[in-house]
Amino acid sequence: MDSVILRNVRPMGEGMTSVAIRNGRIAAFGYEPGPEDTVIDGEGGILIPGLVEAHTHMDKTLLGMGWYRNDVGPRLIDKIENERRQRRILGIDPARQSARQAVLAASLGTTHIRTHVDVDTEVGLAGIEGVLETRERYKDVVEIELVAFPQSGMLIRPGTVELMEKALQLGAQVVGGLDPAAIDRDPKGHLDVVFGLADRYGVPVDIHLHETAELGAFSMELIIERTKALGLQGRVTVSHAFCLGMADQDYVAALIDALAEARIHILTTAPASRPAPAVKRLVEAGIVVAAGSDGVRDTWGPYNNPDMLERAFLVGLRNNLRRDDEVALALDTCTHGGARMMELDGYGLAPDCKADLVVLEGETLAEAVVSRRPRKLVMKGGKVTARDGAALVEAP
Amino acid sequence: MDSVILRNVRPMGEGMTSVAIRNGRIAAFGYEPGPEDTVIDGEGGILIPGLVEAHTHMDKTLLGMGWYRNDVGPRLIDKIENERRQRRILGIDPARQSARQAVLAASLGTTHIRTHVDVDTEVGLAGIEGVLETRERYKDVVEIELVAFPQSGMLIRPGTVELMEKALQLGAQVVGGLDPAAIDRDPKGHLDVVFGLADRYGVPVDIHLHETAELGAFSMELIIERTKALGLQGRVTVSHAFCLGMADQDYVAALIDALAEARIHILTTAPASRPAPAVKRLVEAGIVVAAGSDGVRDTWGPYNNPDMLERAFLVGLRNNLRRDDEVALALDTCTHGGARMMELDGYGLAPDCKADLVVLEGETLAEAVVSRRPRKLVMKGGKVTARDGAALVEAP
Ligand SMILES: [Zn+2]
Ligand SMILES: [Zn+2]
Repeated sequence: MDSVILRNVRPMGEGMTSVAIRNGRIAAFGYEPGPEDTVIDGEGGILIPGLVEAHTHMDKTLLGMGWYRNDVGPRLIDKIENERRQRRILGIDPARQSARQAVLAASLGTTHIRTHVDVDTEVGLAGIEGVLETRERYKDVVEIELVAFPQSGMLIRPGTVELMEKALQLGAQVVGGLDPAAIDRDPKGHLDVVFGLADRYGVPVDIHLHETAELGAFSMELIIERTKALGLQGRVTVSHAFCLGMADQDYVAALIDALAEARIHILTTAPASRPAPAVKRLVEAGIVVAAGSDGVRDTWGPYNNPDMLERAFLVGLRNNLRRDDEVALALDTCTHGGARMMELDGYGLAPDCKADLVVLEGETLAEAVVSRRPRKLVMKGGKVTARDGAALVEAP
Repeated sequence: MDSVILRNVRPMGEGMTSVAIRNGRIAAFGYEPGPEDTVIDGEGGILIPGLVEAHTHMDKTLLGMGWYRNDVGPRLIDKIENERRQRRILGIDPARQSARQAVLAASLGTTHIRTHVDVDTEVGLAGIEGVLETRERYKDVVEIELVAFPQSGMLIRPGTVELMEKALQLGAQVVGGLDPAAIDRDPKGHLDVVFGLADRYGVPVDIHLHETAELGAFSMELIIERTKALGLQGRVTVSHAFCLGMADQDYVAALIDALAEARIHILTTAPASRPAPAVKRLVEAGIVVAAGSDGVRDTWGPYNNPDMLERAFLVGLRNNLRRDDEVALALDTCTHGGARMMELDGYGLAPDCKADLVVLEGETLAEAVVSRRPRKLVMKGGKVTARDGAALVEAP
């Protein structure tokens, strides 16, 4: 009855089966194809739900623009100011660049992306407009969620708050924030604006928190207070949260309890050179942990690429997750963790879930993660979007 | 006059040139081929010297043996005991397994390997004999140096010291050691035996030092004392050296000075989940820093593969080396750093150096490191050993 049947796949590395897909959703497992059905052979690969890129910056990747020779200074402010300068010098077009990353991500099995998009008094809303164009253009390939992101500070640059509000009116779905103490020098003021916008526009919050140790912990407390006061439990993410890697273990334990109680999500890139949240400990405390690539080949650094299977590998390495069940947990931050953070509807491998699927080459799930070979097949809404590592749509 | 000419390559990412190779060595740069010469086209790739894998365990990789489902406990001793048990259960053949890793490493551009080979009262010298077989069989593809390695302890397992001595007589070129306090419970006794063997057999020393913080620092002091007393400056390596990542910065600074003075080398895997030596700081202090994969797909953990370009990427990530000159430094630990540690003769890209060469695909050196694409060409002693990621020799 006119289904697509994906045969010879092993859901999460378990027993071989077939998946029937109808109207873009998973209809059944173990279904025998009839004469009307379209059959796709999964060749024994491992079936997982679409990978979720839960934190990146598509508006300013330099993909396809020629190698950017990095000689930037070591401080955070050096990187922020250099980037604003380079945006003018290099002519980074947000629509074109986000489209390039969208297509590359799709070829790697990513079906959902949350991207933070710069909003400041220099770029204005051009980044938002460009990424909205990409969101619309590639909506059948990858779903993109925009965070209005005040990268250069908000209160220290008058006019930014108004632009943030316009970004939400234009179509950004999440309100962002950034180091309320370290950048805006006013943690209360910064967070009141961010949460005020969330409250008025009914949108989730996602705050970059690089502040380390006790300073970051204080900002996190302010975030927890506002989350509870406004009834935003389950709708707030703290990205990076380096302070959860601080030395004072009693303080960390108290923060974890408070985060769990406020149902605040944590996003990590699993940075190797920084204190970072302990993924397994957070998950065991019931906190949703998602993963992201952060900026891809940008003026900040050269290492990130938008491969969420590589990110799972890096989450595993950073958190010393060696057992097979632990490697599966690392992968989970790049699938279900991101999906829960982004409040995705109908995500997963169960009947009725959307047919956003990836077929991996691998003997076991852990082997597929550590090997990170080209994706055999990627589907979005039941339609094939990439095969053998190559997307079926063109990038600009 | 009967040379091999490698054309259209960019040494270290610089200007395009050609390399003339005679008698297995680099004869000249910018040489125009004559009618007698064999010409190989480098297609504009980046030329680097052969990659150096300075720390691995070829005798016990599980490559090609089917996925090992890891459910090992978290302690070091759990992993050591599980491995001894699995060696019997799985039937890990050191000759076959080291050959598989040798061929895979060659396909990835590695031309030199230092491998630690287990010596204990259960395996005896079977590991040494197996890897010696591989060393001989693949000597035209990759040069292998064996470290006699008392993985299960030395003084706590009577009979091991005699086996270590026999290993050196059989052909192991380096004497190894392991956590003199944490495993053998006798730092003085353990190190006196290790250095005594080095002195008697005239061989270098390479000690696994996982001991953290002040305990590791104490063991390191004992190593420094013996290095100087026996005139072994320049011939001793401390592998891992997690203690150099400890919190007490004054103590770290004093250790770095003492290591530099004793010309002791540091080997790092750039572990993301552990305190680790700061690569750039050590290099700036004049210390040779080399890099290694450690065990590849073994019972310890699933993540490591013997790609030294991936290791350079991980060294860069772990040490936050973002600038192009810093990425080059990360790569240097996987080339010249390893070569100096292993006291390789005629290593490098200068005239008269051995023609152990790799051609990378990449726009710049940094781009090649972060992208880690299949190696275009690998040469050992002027002969092509791998092309487009595939070795020209077969693995068992
Ligand atoms: Zn970010
Ligand atoms: Zn080792």
